[in-house]
Amino acid sequence: MTTSPSLRPGHTADADALPDFDDVLAAAARIAPHAHHTPVLRSRAIDALAGCELFFKAEHLQRAGAFKFRGACNAVWSLTPAQAARGVVTHSSGNHGAALALAARTRGIACHVVVPEQAVAAKLAAIEAYGAVLHRCAPTLAAREAMCAQVQADTGAELVHPYTDARVIAGQGTAALELLNANGHALDAIVTPVGGGGLLSGTAIAARATTPSIRIFGAEPTGAADAHASLARGERVPSLVPDTVCDGLRGLIGAPNFALFQRHGVEVLLADDGATARAMRLIWERTKQLVEPSSAVALAVVLGHRERFAGQRVGVVLSGGNVDLDAIGDLLARAR
Amino acid sequence: MTTSPSLRPGHTADADALPDFDDVLAAAARIAPHAHHTPVLRSRAIDALAGCELFFKAEHLQRAGAFKFRGACNAVWSLTPAQAARGVVTHSSGNHGAALALAARTRGIACHVVVPEQAVAAKLAAIEAYGAVLHRCAPTLAAREAMCAQVQADTGAELVHPYTDARVIAGQGTAALELLNANGHALDAIVTPVGGGGLLSGTAIAARATTPSIRIFGAEPTGAADAHASLARGERVPSLVPDTVCDGLRGLIGAPNFALFQRHGVEVLLADDGATARAMRLIWERTKQLVEPSSAVALAVVLGHRERFAGQRVGVVLSGGNVDLDAIGDLLARAR
Repeated sequence: MTTSPSLRPGHTADADALPDFDDVLAAAARIAPHAHHTPVLRSRAIDALAGCELFFKAEHLQRAGAFKFRGACNAVWSLTPAQAARGVVTHSSGNHGAALALAARTRGIACHVVVPEQAVAAKLAAIEAYGAVLHRCAPTLAAREAMCAQVQADTGAELVHPYTDARVIAGQGTAALELLNANGHALDAIVTPVGGGGLLSGTAIAARATTPSIRIFGAEPTGAADAHASLARGERVPSLVPDTVCDGLRGLIGAPNFALFQRHGVEVLLADDGATARAMRLIWERTKQLVEPSSAVALAVVLGHRERFAGQRVGVVLSGGNVDLDAIGDLLARAR
Repeated sequence: MTTSPSLRPGHTADADALPDFDDVLAAAARIAPHAHHTPVLRSRAIDALAGCELFFKAEHLQRAGAFKFRGACNAVWSLTPAQAARGVVTHSSGNHGAALALAARTRGIACHVVVPEQAVAAKLAAIEAYGAVLHRCAPTLAAREAMCAQVQADTGAELVHPYTDARVIAGQGTAALELLNANGHALDAIVTPVGGGGLLSGTAIAARATTPSIRIFGAEPTGAADAHASLARGERVPSLVPDTVCDGLRGLIGAPNFALFQRHGVEVLLADDGATARAMRLIWERTKQLVEPSSAVALAVVLGHRERFAGQRVGVVLSGGNVDLDAIGDLLARAR
C-alpha cells in the first residue's frame, strides 16, 4: 500500500501572499455555481460512543468524491481568460488530479496531469474520464518536476499545486465555512485530516474568522506525522518515509500551510492505522456513508482523545470517499 | 451465504382485509414523529449508464438501516394501549427483527424476537442492542412457529409478521409516498426489491393511487424468483430453495402481497447475483452510499432492461444498508 510521498512544494511561503478570509469568501462565491453545498450528517450512535456532539461535513459527496474539487475549482475559475486558454497542469495520481480535471471541464479548458508510471490504473482512468491529458514519468520527484516544467513550457499551462497554491487553500476553506454557517451548528472545535495541509490551513482561516474561540485540530496518521512534529519543533521537519493506509495523507506539509497553522493556532492529534480503520468501519456501519481512510482519521482522533472533546460540539470534515474497492477486505481486516 | 427462507405467512389473504391508500396515508401520519423522511439521491454518472433519470429513495438511511422500520413502527403505534402493554413478537433474524425492536422502544413496550440458533451473531447483537428479548429455537419452520406461539401464550404479545401484516404493508408504502410526493419527481415507473412482498405491495398501493399511469416493478434475484413465477402462473408457487447473495430477499411472497401485486398490475423483473453485485459496486463508487445487495437488485434490473426504461423518470427504492462488512470481499468479488 505504500507509495512515494507527494511532491514537496516547489515554492516557499511568502507571508504577504498567504490567503485570508476574504479569499475564502471570494472562493465560496466563485465555486458556488459548480461545487455541491454538501450536507451535514449526524449519528446518535457515534455521538454516544464519542461522548460529544459530532457534525460531519460530507465532502465525500462533493463532486469527484472529495473536498479537492473546491480548491481546484477556485483555481480554475480564478484564471484570466488568457491564462485559461492555455489550460492548467498539476502532478497528482489521486483526488487532486481528478478534481482539477473535472474543474477544468467545468470551464471547458485543457488539463494536464503528470502521473508516476506505477500509479493505480483505476485512478488514472478516473482522471482521464474527466477529460484530462495524462503525462507519465518515472516515479521520482525529479522526474515529476521535470515533466511538469516541460508541460508548462510546451503549453503555457498554469501550475495548480495540490496544497500550497493560495487559490487552492482558499477554496478548501469553503467546506468549513459552510459547516460553520449551518444553522444551529455553532462549534467548539473543528477537526480535519492533514496531509499536505491544504484543507487544514483553509479550514483554519475560515474557522478562526467566523468563530474566534474555536479550537482547530488536524488529524494525522502516526505513520505520516510530519505536521505534528513540525508544530512541536516550530519549523517544518521532513517526514520519514510515510507508512499509512491513509493514501491521501502521505504528503509533507507545505510552507504556506505550516505558516497558516502557526498563525491560527492549529493543533495536530495523531491516530494509528488500526484506530483509523475502526473509525472508518464505524462510519460505514452507522451512517452508511462510504468514506475513505483519510476521512476516518478525523473521527479516530476524536475517539482517541475523548477528554479533549467531552460534551462539546465538534465539526468533523469527512474529506473524501474514493475508497479502493479492490483492497477493501485488507482495509477492514485492520479494524479487527 | 445461504440461510433458510423466511417463514411462510401464517395467515392467508382476505381480500376485504387488504390495506388501501387510506391505510398508507394513516401510516404516514402515525410514523412521522419517529421515522426519518429520507432524502432522494441522484447520480449523473448512473443516469448516463442507465439511459434514464433515476431517483433513489435512500431507505438505507432510515432508522435501523432499512425501510423495515416504517412498517414495524406503523404496527407498533397502531396498537391499543391494552395491546401495547403486552408487547409485540416476531420471527426474524434480519432487518425486520431490528426494526421491530427499535419501533417497540419508541413506544416503550416489550419486543420478543424468535431467532434460529444458527443466525449471524452480529445481527442478533443489533436486535438485542435495541432492547428486544431473543428467543432461540431450532432452524426449522415448525420450531419457529411453535416458539412464536409459546411467546404469545406466555405474554399475550401481538404478532407482527414481517410482510403479510396489513399494518406492515401500509407502513412500507410510505417510502414510495414520500418519493412520489417529492417536488419535481413525477415518475414514469417505480422499482423496488421483492422478497416477501411487503415493500412492493405497499409501494403498489401508494404508486397506483397517486400516479394512476405509473408502471410498478419488483426486482427479484434469479435465485429466489418465486414472485416472478407466481405472476406468470397466476397463483403463488413455492420457491425452490433460495440461492442468492440478497439475504433480505430469500422469503416467499405472502398471500396478501400477491393479491396486491395482481390488483395493482405489478410486474417483476429478474437480475442474477453478478449483475446485482456490479450494480451495488456502481452505487458505492458513484454515490458513496453503502447499500446492501438486496437494495442493489433494483438498479440491476433497470440496467438489465434498459429498453423498458429508456428516457424515463424512474424511482428506485434503495431498501437498506445493512451490509455484512466481514463478507464484503466475497461480495465484491462477484462484481468482477
